[in-house]
Amino acid sequence: MSPADVAAADAADPLAPLRGRFRIPSGLIYLDGNSLGALPAATPAAMARVVEQEWGEQLIGGWNTAGWLTAPQRVGALIAPLIGADANEVIACDSTSINLYKAAAAALALRPGRAVILADADEFPTDLYMLQGLAAQTGASLRTAREGGFEEAIGEHTALVALSHVNYRSGRVRDMAAITAKAHEKGALALWDLSHSAGALPVALNACEADFAIGCGYKYLNGGPGAPAYIFAARRHHAAAETPLPGWMGHAAPFAFEGGHRPAVGMTRFLAGTPPILGLAALEAGLKTFEGVDMAQVRAKSLALADLFLAEVQAGAPGVFDVASAPSADRGSQVALRHPEGYAMVQALIADGVVGDFRAPDILRFGFTPLYLSHADVAEAARRLCALVASGAWRDERFSRRQAVT
Amino acid sequence: MSPADVAAADAADPLAPLRGRFRIPSGLIYLDGNSLGALPAATPAAMARVVEQEWGEQLIGGWNTAGWLTAPQRVGALIAPLIGADANEVIACDSTSINLYKAAAAALALRPGRAVILADADEFPTDLYMLQGLAAQTGASLRTAREGGFEEAIGEHTALVALSHVNYRSGRVRDMAAITAKAHEKGALALWDLSHSAGALPVALNACEADFAIGCGYKYLNGGPGAPAYIFAARRHHAAAETPLPGWMGHAAPFAFEGGHRPAVGMTRFLAGTPPILGLAALEAGLKTFEGVDMAQVRAKSLALADLFLAEVQAGAPGVFDVASAPSADRGSQVALRHPEGYAMVQALIADGVVGDFRAPDILRFGFTPLYLSHADVAEAARRLCALVASGAWRDERFSRRQAVT
Repeated sequence: MSPADVAAADAADPLAPLRGRFRIPSGLIYLDGNSLGALPAATPAAMARVVEQEWGEQLIGGWNTAGWLTAPQRVGALIAPLIGADANEVIACDSTSINLYKAAAAALALRPGRAVILADADEFPTDLYMLQGLAAQTGASLRTAREGGFEEAIGEHTALVALSHVNYRSGRVRDMAAITAKAHEKGALALWDLSHSAGALPVALNACEADFAIGCGYKYLNGGPGAPAYIFAARRHHAAAETPLPGWMGHAAPFAFEGGHRPAVGMTRFLAGTPPILGLAALEAGLKTFEGVDMAQVRAKSLALADLFLAEVQAGAPGVFDVASAPSADRGSQVALRHPEGYAMVQALIADGVVGDFRAPDILRFGFTPLYLSHADVAEAARRLCALVASGAWRDERFSRRQAVT
Repeated sequence: MSPADVAAADAADPLAPLRGRFRIPSGLIYLDGNSLGALPAATPAAMARVVEQEWGEQLIGGWNTAGWLTAPQRVGALIAPLIGADANEVIACDSTSINLYKAAAAALALRPGRAVILADADEFPTDLYMLQGLAAQTGASLRTAREGGFEEAIGEHTALVALSHVNYRSGRVRDMAAITAKAHEKGALALWDLSHSAGALPVALNACEADFAIGCGYKYLNGGPGAPAYIFAARRHHAAAETPLPGWMGHAAPFAFEGGHRPAVGMTRFLAGTPPILGLAALEAGLKTFEGVDMAQVRAKSLALADLFLAEVQAGAPGVFDVASAPSADRGSQVALRHPEGYAMVQALIADGVVGDFRAPDILRFGFTPLYLSHADVAEAARRLCALVASGAWRDERFSRRQAVT
């Protein structure tokens, strides 16, 4: 794409004004919104308000007067339209890991006599670990399958299929409708981890008849580091689904201080402890960056940005990388390039002002967040990656020392 | 106490300057720090820093460069001296409810062949609910005993005694050393909920040989609404204790993305999901209000304030309330008064600028936080409560409508 074409694409971009909803450090090209979304411009004031005016001035009264008690439901309702759910089918709470445990345990209990949980062998590890823990405690078995083999692996003992909608590493989108239908056909339930899809592409939980879903608040939802997560259950399961972690905020009458647990109606039963108000306030501000945004436009731009990046890299550094990403129809909002020296290359690129990330063993991962990236950003990021390859600057030893990164 | 005596007590109070570490709304007397601690003066700037400078400018790099990855351990180490633990025996994460579940499950697994969990029949309900859930999932039995009967109820089938150090309603302090010793004598483990004691009175987990402990960050620790909680395990259990919620942040190598869970060394294994950085930042700022504070002085002032309040209420409104609190040696940092119309009285008192709270069925509860209350505050609060009783102003119908409160 010529510089003029890139400029024209930005000029024609209906989402371009949304960049003003974020604070992006000057000079930085941030291709890691799939790990941690950028800071929304409205968040600092929202946080100051909850800290200084709500907590500072209303103190304990804030639970009622500032609406803290209903924050999990209110934030859940903001997430719902992004994932094709009704407002009262989603609640924000705890972490993605904890919510996966709750949803998987609830699903298992809804399928008595079946004890197999089917997951992706290449799943984001925390999902596998939590499912391993649940299996060990309940006597269930965790089985895994690989890309393309999920539907085939669903059998008459399968209680639950638990998959990511978009794989964290390859960025491949799974066919939620087909896999859910296959699970149902075999009498199993389907639980979707939306961490790498919600906010990046249209998600249609109810249209796909998904049973449960969970996801994180800190990637495309822009909720800040370690933001609260969320959990969805289809309304048809609300009466029977039970949480394995029955805390007081999930009680039908949390302030009656009854001795026995009585689950609240609807998703509220999936709450456990006291809601994390500061985290929820930041997540609420993050979700407001989607106000009035057409997810079809987000999807179109996300694919256009990723296609642009891939084309420029393949033209500027031909044959250097294996493309681990699927073609655009099956691709989420990220691109995965494979290179044995990927770790050092990512570090060197970060030092050059383009932030991507690395996933073991050899994946350079670049996320495309249409709310705050321009075509010019992406073309420039590709140019810098190609220049880095050409110069060999990534060979400097300071780029090869491994640090923990998320 | 005469006004002059009250003024003299304040003048002689070594903790009086600590009030400057908090922002207390002008004119308000806040006797509910046992529900939600007041806003520390340093917290707004700390939150602005983590939001604007760390998240906003360092973005994903903040996990390393801003120390986010080690926040659970760092905040745990700040809690440790307040509860008589070593720095690496405490980690901050999740909610109190979730941490209770983790600690109780870990303790149960350390006592194979024993299946009874013993709790307080009058425990804060979320603890009972979580233990009920754990019992249902593991086949254990939850038994309860009442005040004074705990030691006697520990038997040869008891795996775990799970009690609050200070009861949330009565404010009674339990004899941690004696009950823990009795549990050990019978072969059981002891798990202490410190939510109503940590930060209000000296806690000596290791001196008492406690096995596990958990507690909340939003009461006396001043961490803000729904702050992250913490979990303690005595070092002797670190190698064998296992979490039932094995998420990626509790893995020995979270960024190696291994397929199977390998627990991290020490308390880190009790982490599950990604740490809630905004909440941890506020909790860290809250804990810094204890810098250089002598907990023996905190305890002495707490008892003096509560004694002053009780004496003034009994003198000013003789015979009106039953005192449900223990004498000072067995009393935490709160006073419980009993009255059939307690709910309306608390609401009327709040309207008059004195914030206490109500606990069903008939408890007016007043907490005394020595870091930000003066003797003059407490004497004035008692005076207003007595004036309210005398005037009958609480009978106004706007005070009788029940609202949810925490």
